Amino acid sequence: MPKQPQHPQHRRDWTDPNCPVARTLDLVGDRWSLLIVRDAMDGARAFTDFQQRLGIARNVLTDRLRRLVEDGVMRREVAASGKRQTYALTPAGQDLFTVVVALRQWGERHAFAPGEPHSVLVDQRGDLVPEVTVHDDEGRAFDVETTHVRKLA
Amino acid sequence: MPKQPQHPQHRRDWTDPNCPVARTLDLVGDRWSLLIVRDAMDGARAFTDFQQRLGIARNVLTDRLRRLVEDGVMRREVAASGKRQTYALTPAGQDLFTVVVALRQWGERHAFAPGEPHSVLVDQRGDLVPEVTVHDDEGRAFDVETTHVRKLA
Repeated sequence: MPKQPQHPQHRRDWTDPNCPVARTLDLVGDRWSLLIVRDAMDGARAFTDFQQRLGIARNVLTDRLRRLVEDGVMRREVAASGKRQTYALTPAGQDLFTVVVALRQWGERHAFAPGEPHSVLVDQRGDLVPEVTVHDDEGRAFDVETTHVRKLA
Repeated sequence: MPKQPQHPQHRRDWTDPNCPVARTLDLVGDRWSLLIVRDAMDGARAFTDFQQRLGIARNVLTDRLRRLVEDGVMRREVAASGKRQTYALTPAGQDLFTVVVALRQWGERHAFAPGEPHSVLVDQRGDLVPEVTVHDDEGRAFDVETTHVRKLA
């Protein structure tokens, strides 16, 4: 029987327990973990799918998948054939969509030379997914200058 | 004279060169790097500011700051006194705001028990910064199910 996922909030070894940014990074702030999540969003399911897409060592992949399952970001499933395990995003894992899109769009803006080719994220009509910004319903935008962190709510 | 920042797109050792998500993670996808960026967004400037806020080993902090400067995410400045170096986000670093907010909001939703206290991000009026979602001008929302990656554009 697969090990029951822990609720991540029960962890006790947080780097900075009161900061949601830091907790997220403790859970998925590892390059491989977020690339595994990216590939799961794009249809990777079997261990070998992830291994081939990432070119990652087996033991590292095993470790990261185990942690993602323990932390409730992914879950193990048995494929229809009953023969092999697959991995799928939980609702919490799917909810990393905004994070992955924000990472993608920052990379598109800052990590490619002008005209340098890269993959793109498109919708069902093949249109580019719009840029994510932080704004309210009236379209007022927020940025580093106009916001600050208030310790503990 | 401070070393001129490299343009990150000139790097040659990308994990997955065509993927903007992967390039961003190669540049800042290290837990400490994003926590340094978080603290810079919240006013940290001097080496000791970062060290005290993060509780990070000096050599690790030195290494991560050096990389962030080399990759054009932060820049070194000499404080008004002329006596000590400080670190500030470049425009590319400030543009990580959306990424940091998305990480924060995911953490708020998934990494805290109900009612467990955490810091919050507020605007100049003290109001909570709204949730970031992926949507178009007509309010049509995008998610894992309705989008896919198209290799190379």
